[in-house]
Amino acid sequence: MRAEIITIGDELLIGQVVDTNSAWMAQKLNENGIELFQITSVHDDREHIIAAIDDAFKRVDIVLTTGGLGPTKDDITKQVLCEYFQTHLIEDERVRAHVEHLYQDRPDVLNRLTATQWMVPECAVILPNRVGSAPLMIFPHGQQLLASMPGVPYEMEIAMEEQILPYLQNVQCTKDHVQMGQILHRTLQVNGIPESSLAIVLEEYEATKPEYIHLAYLPKDGIIRLRLSSYGEATEAEMNEWFERLKVLTKEYLIAETDEPLEVIAGKLLKERGETISTAESCTGGKLASLLNKHAGSSAFYWGSIVSYDNSVKEHLLGVPEDILKTRGAVSEETVRIMAESVRVQTGTTYAIATSGIAGPTGGSDDKPVGTVWIAWATPEGTSAECFHLGKLREQITDRACTKALIGMIKILGHKSDI
Amino acid sequence: MRAEIITIGDELLIGQVVDTNSAWMAQKLNENGIELFQITSVHDDREHIIAAIDDAFKRVDIVLTTGGLGPTKDDITKQVLCEYFQTHLIEDERVRAHVEHLYQDRPDVLNRLTATQWMVPECAVILPNRVGSAPLMIFPHGQQLLASMPGVPYEMEIAMEEQILPYLQNVQCTKDHVQMGQILHRTLQVNGIPESSLAIVLEEYEATKPEYIHLAYLPKDGIIRLRLSSYGEATEAEMNEWFERLKVLTKEYLIAETDEPLEVIAGKLLKERGETISTAESCTGGKLASLLNKHAGSSAFYWGSIVSYDNSVKEHLLGVPEDILKTRGAVSEETVRIMAESVRVQTGTTYAIATSGIAGPTGGSDDKPVGTVWIAWATPEGTSAECFHLGKLREQITDRACTKALIGMIKILGHKSDI
Repeated sequence: MRAEIITIGDELLIGQVVDTNSAWMAQKLNENGIELFQITSVHDDREHIIAAIDDAFKRVDIVLTTGGLGPTKDDITKQVLCEYFQTHLIEDERVRAHVEHLYQDRPDVLNRLTATQWMVPECAVILPNRVGSAPLMIFPHGQQLLASMPGVPYEMEIAMEEQILPYLQNVQCTKDHVQMGQILHRTLQVNGIPESSLAIVLEEYEATKPEYIHLAYLPKDGIIRLRLSSYGEATEAEMNEWFERLKVLTKEYLIAETDEPLEVIAGKLLKERGETISTAESCTGGKLASLLNKHAGSSAFYWGSIVSYDNSVKEHLLGVPEDILKTRGAVSEETVRIMAESVRVQTGTTYAIATSGIAGPTGGSDDKPVGTVWIAWATPEGTSAECFHLGKLREQITDRACTKALIGMIKILGHKSDI
Repeated sequence: MRAEIITIGDELLIGQVVDTNSAWMAQKLNENGIELFQITSVHDDREHIIAAIDDAFKRVDIVLTTGGLGPTKDDITKQVLCEYFQTHLIEDERVRAHVEHLYQDRPDVLNRLTATQWMVPECAVILPNRVGSAPLMIFPHGQQLLASMPGVPYEMEIAMEEQILPYLQNVQCTKDHVQMGQILHRTLQVNGIPESSLAIVLEEYEATKPEYIHLAYLPKDGIIRLRLSSYGEATEAEMNEWFERLKVLTKEYLIAETDEPLEVIAGKLLKERGETISTAESCTGGKLASLLNKHAGSSAFYWGSIVSYDNSVKEHLLGVPEDILKTRGAVSEETVRIMAESVRVQTGTTYAIATSGIAGPTGGSDDKPVGTVWIAWATPEGTSAECFHLGKLREQITDRACTKALIGMIKILGHKSDI
């Protein structure tokens, strides 16, 4: 089966909100054997929504819409869907009871606008929205269907996982004509080789692999993710075989054999060993800490950090001597080594990472231009440090510094001697 | 003028990458008087790309494509555009010189795949890509045009700012028939009132304002952004007038009179007063620090943080007594007050914010379920603290905790007595 997502909302088209929903939905659809064919973002506008639905039904079996289901005047999706599917609104007692229960401690919310939420299109299958007031609606359309859900990310996520995807699985099972093979993706991550050089290394591989196994290159922040994809044609064994060959060919540059974020890979290695980590951050300003404890279960290996943005904090909380800050500078090998060793001792962790750099836009010099970043890794066996030049843009520099810091840590944890 | 963005790349449709480009581009287009009508994401597939361009030209004057311009086999945009515009590739000496200069210190990159980058479509206007090897291409199409640029965010951003937008401005000036009024957006942010109740407060306002001034509600993490928009019809004076009325009506709940992120608003207030801030973070794990120093110029007011994820760090680095951690717990008013006061004294800042909560998925109890977060604000006048219940999902909880922490800080800095 093929799907299209239509995201509805002016906020997306004036750039007030980044669409994070679609990527999340795409992953879940793929895991459920549904190919996402297209994503279309349209205004909160009657004609525009209708045209987008019309076009989507020419391309796909399943149309998923998000957004426009709030109780305020600017939200028009439900009315437009009624018009499109030639139906009208009726009161739904179950939705009413649910919304009244949801806001039982908030009588101020149970006003006449909120009451519009339990009016639902007569022809639609209504599924419960456990965490919000807007009901989930499925509109059958011949052999096709449209599912409408809220645009608020966590409401959408719970709606998809608990209601929409199980519903689609059920539809898929009962319709012979839409039987679909498995969608398979396998990704590995490499570091230390330019994209074009990697493509030359893989030229013979690309020429010999089956046409229906696609190879894609995704470079970002010095990492290239190499992805093999198959849409229902390759078997799992075949994918494994071609993935293994890819691993052998890229062995020298291999950082990870999955698409997991680097902080997850580092976290797993730490957990396996029962070891812990802390950070001392200047230019990355807490971003590295925040990555390390982003995922559930991080308290097993991540203990704490000192963010020393100002030199006074480097001096008083991390013990970097004043004369080193004066003679060598805050962005120097000496400073970053002391930062890493100090936070490691103070927190009592197995490892510590420290960063100090010039994120810009000001603060650069001929000697140390914007983008210069020193990173140190303190371990029970000693401390290593390296200097990087990570571009010109503030956010790019701090993102890349985190990537470099994590790559270094993964290499240490993986006992790779070729750092 | 109206535009459509077509983002090209399988990675978007399998959810491997979040499309952050489109929101950035949307903002810039609006600032330049160009309405973004639709965003369409398609696969790296010849037929799909051609169909999307065909459809877009039926809707808009300007088609902007991103992605698919790398030197590897999976990138096919340039070839497909050649086919669509019935042209062929020729060598471009300027692009060749630029790419050779770009990689002068990287002879390994100057291989035969990279050499394909200086082959360009004969009919296209080629604009320089200062930071990458893929040339920017403009294809005239009667009175319409298509501009193709790389999908790597910072390459796209520099391309848009330095080349594509000035080119479009120039086209706009020389074509009488596409004269366009100003696109105006004004946003304010409120807190402490449900969306539906706010809509009832604003019912008369909505009924009396001109039709061509649109009002949108964007709720997120307890903040509602209220946006007025006009696409070329309202004058600036008219927008100001209606914005002022909106401010008066929402006065009681007003947090900010702009759409800027809360950390920027807090930062500006701190800078105006020459004051400084630090954080002590448990459940937010460095995210609040990272927000406070995300933007250029933050070193003027942000000094540092202690991330005390593990209790041992709360005890040894923040001086939370062991018996308080045992009797009251890490997630308690007592702990979070000591954390805030301790980091304020240690870093010597004017203010400090501390967070301690249960981000889940484990660690909750009947007494303190997942989502319970204590926040404290330490000031020269004393310390205040508040307990929040911020949902069930880890990322949502930590995001909302940062929002609550910043709202509290803005209220303190704005000397609002009604906190």
